[in-house]
Amino acid sequence: ERERETNTTIAHVYRGTFVHSTPHTALQILEDALLGVDTEGKIAFIGKGEELNKLSQSCGFSPSEVIQLAQHEFFMPGMVDTHIHAPQYSYAGTALDLPLLQWLNTYTFPVESRFKDLEFARSVYTQVVKRTLRNGTTTACYFATIHTDASLLLGKITNDFGQRALVGKVCMDINNAVKHYKETSEESQEETCRFIAELLKKKYPLVKPVVTPRFALSCSADLLEQLGAIAKNNNLHIQSHISETIEEVNVVKKLFPDSESYTDVYLKHNLLTDKTVMAHGCHLTDEELALFRETGASLSHCPNSNISLCSGMLNVRNVLNHKVKLGLGTDVAGGYSASMLDAVRRTLDTSKVLTIQEPDYCTLSFEEVFRLATLGGSQALSMDDHTGNFEVGKDFDALRVNVAAPEGPIDLVQVDEPKILLEKFLNLGDDRNIVEVYVAGRKVVPFE
Amino acid sequence: ERERETNTTIAHVYRGTFVHSTPHTALQILEDALLGVDTEGKIAFIGKGEELNKLSQSCGFSPSEVIQLAQHEFFMPGMVDTHIHAPQYSYAGTALDLPLLQWLNTYTFPVESRFKDLEFARSVYTQVVKRTLRNGTTTACYFATIHTDASLLLGKITNDFGQRALVGKVCMDINNAVKHYKETSEESQEETCRFIAELLKKKYPLVKPVVTPRFALSCSADLLEQLGAIAKNNNLHIQSHISETIEEVNVVKKLFPDSESYTDVYLKHNLLTDKTVMAHGCHLTDEELALFRETGASLSHCPNSNISLCSGMLNVRNVLNHKVKLGLGTDVAGGYSASMLDAVRRTLDTSKVLTIQEPDYCTLSFEEVFRLATLGGSQALSMDDHTGNFEVGKDFDALRVNVAAPEGPIDLVQVDEPKILLEKFLNLGDDRNIVEVYVAGRKVVPFE
Ligand SMILES: [Zn+2]
Ligand SMILES: [Zn+2]
Repeated sequence: ERERETNTTIAHVYRGTFVHSTPHTALQILEDALLGVDTEGKIAFIGKGEELNKLSQSCGFSPSEVIQLAQHEFFMPGMVDTHIHAPQYSYAGTALDLPLLQWLNTYTFPVESRFKDLEFARSVYTQVVKRTLRNGTTTACYFATIHTDASLLLGKITNDFGQRALVGKVCMDINNAVKHYKETSEESQEETCRFIAELLKKKYPLVKPVVTPRFALSCSADLLEQLGAIAKNNNLHIQSHISETIEEVNVVKKLFPDSESYTDVYLKHNLLTDKTVMAHGCHLTDEELALFRETGASLSHCPNSNISLCSGMLNVRNVLNHKVKLGLGTDVAGGYSASMLDAVRRTLDTSKVLTIQEPDYCTLSFEEVFRLATLGGSQALSMDDHTGNFEVGKDFDALRVNVAAPEGPIDLVQVDEPKILLEKFLNLGDDRNIVEVYVAGRKVVPFE
Repeated sequence: ERERETNTTIAHVYRGTFVHSTPHTALQILEDALLGVDTEGKIAFIGKGEELNKLSQSCGFSPSEVIQLAQHEFFMPGMVDTHIHAPQYSYAGTALDLPLLQWLNTYTFPVESRFKDLEFARSVYTQVVKRTLRNGTTTACYFATIHTDASLLLGKITNDFGQRALVGKVCMDINNAVKHYKETSEESQEETCRFIAELLKKKYPLVKPVVTPRFALSCSADLLEQLGAIAKNNNLHIQSHISETIEEVNVVKKLFPDSESYTDVYLKHNLLTDKTVMAHGCHLTDEELALFRETGASLSHCPNSNISLCSGMLNVRNVLNHKVKLGLGTDVAGGYSASMLDAVRRTLDTSKVLTIQEPDYCTLSFEEVFRLATLGGSQALSMDDHTGNFEVGKDFDALRVNVAAPEGPIDLVQVDEPKILLEKFLNLGDDRNIVEVYVAGRKVVPFE
């Protein structure tokens, strides 16, 4: 099915190279393709350049309106950051010298507590939304802080700039390090309900709330239980952290002696659903991965963070073999980079390090990692009905990439084929190569 | 000693933050410092801002000529790339799916054989010299190809753009994969002598020849022997590869049954001197490291390449504990990035991965890696008399870094201290933050 059957009006038609993934093909390259976007921002048709006249008649557009990509350009799906802490962007690129639990107490909680100040929040949240959009993140799954109003502000800013987002007000009723940076269990539940209600009331078309227990160490069993119920009653997304470090896994075991595993803690409290995304999972057992598979919960692989904090290395191949949905995340600021291109490179690195350790390891290919950064992320967030690749009926979430952008980071020697151009972009490119970003058909980069 | 005693004329004076390394301090920060550069490009004095009037009289410059850095700017020493293959820049960012020996046969040799064509060579060599300079590489130690004239052209291009460089015509009399891409042993020796003589005849002030046997697998014992003699007779630098992969180490053992180790192969042929830099060394034994220490030979750590080709992970801490000189290298195009900032990040990554594997491992700090990229590299190339840090009498090889460069990759929330600015630059910066590059006092970036 290459054309929508509804009577939509074509807003834009692009002609050139399109690269994307399908569930069965990690990298599909469409050369000299025609793609039409309707006035609702959805992909109306995908055809071949040679079909121009036929399509212009059947779909109702003028061949003279077609926007032609240049030789070194291509369109790819926008990237999906399945795990990013918006407030931590304020110290991205620093404070990477402590293991997770000390890092949280020493750097993270003191900084996050400052987001009670709405003007500080506005400044940082504007930076992170603009930066991630420039870097090609069309969809982001955000942790905010415990502050409801600042979290609502993050929702407003993502909507204003046109980024597709899940936004979570963080819930935590345990924090022994920074006394004022926690809530009572009742506050956390009430404020979560207020956050959800107020965000939904805005009717932002692309921004939705996500229930966000920080992780098992920051939440009482009672709070976990209530948050599971809130998510269930409102059919909402859920995000949290799991099995990031061995130390953390051991503490969880002690705190929840009745649970069989870390995964079981979340499962028991109804926090493992097909709309759940859990960050990290470096140290999950195969039995736990089976629970993910059964419930439809997904993992967000955050390799920069896992290496930078010396947390562990996720065996992505094993996760995929268990048919668990998996996307990539930057995990700013445990990960220092807010760019999904960095997440792509670090995912390849981690896979290659696992190969160094075990030469028979089935290394991920760059094509597979490209899929994880796009379609895989949309699946992990249960958004693949709307985004993740170029399919008729999905929203047009796309990056226009110019590998030979002037003053850019890539030198080309010759006319390269699209697969080589994509590989060079993934390894060497940056925001200078991402000349336009579209979310649901709207051009959101360059900024107006 | 903070002032030169000779009667030199001051050409430029800079005031602001300077960050650099000394043998005893990984990161020394000089705030509100004054640094004077003489007409020969050497550092004439380093003082405190408050000494302006005194210094202007004693050194002979006008306070009104002083160039003041802005708040988010600092000077750091130019970075030293101790191992980079100039011709391989033509396919950087691609072809990373095979292990070393297959990678050489499949991708590298066919491409390098094209550098017989001087116009192709001029195009690629101009790109790589400009790109590395933009990225802050003030000193580079280059492999070219077996072609003498193209290698001389690389020397001319580095000289024209003002980069400090060692340039090596590659020697290899064994190649079973690409038949025309090799020399006889006699040709290799004669052409090496011609290369050295012609390059020295140019009297380029900053560009010198380096004797370059590709590695033990590409050179007969006879050729190794002769190259050792050529280097000795002309007191020249030497570069090669060692112990990059386990497969390679095993083949060397078979080919050189009389040698006790891979290191011993080079030692026996007089190729291990205090002007030798060997790339990789991932799989060297402690006994071999002791030979490096004794001879004064150094290692070039190329973490991007080692991970990208799944070659191994160098235990840098162990090398440093053995008091072996060590610098960083990009190893383009086994390493996909021509930026030393990438080499810094990947060095930290490798150190952190070793920490994940062995929690007691003494992880490298970013300050230590900063030193390796600057002073360490100059030591590894036996050039630390002339470059590597800010010492009176050394050449002024420096990067003017603006962490808050407009349209750059870094967002600042507040006024950060210099150490934080450096850390952000090392983790997140790129060429947009490197607003000026100086080699021996000459401004070489932006390009004229
Ligand atoms: Zn996180
Ligand atoms: Zn090399």
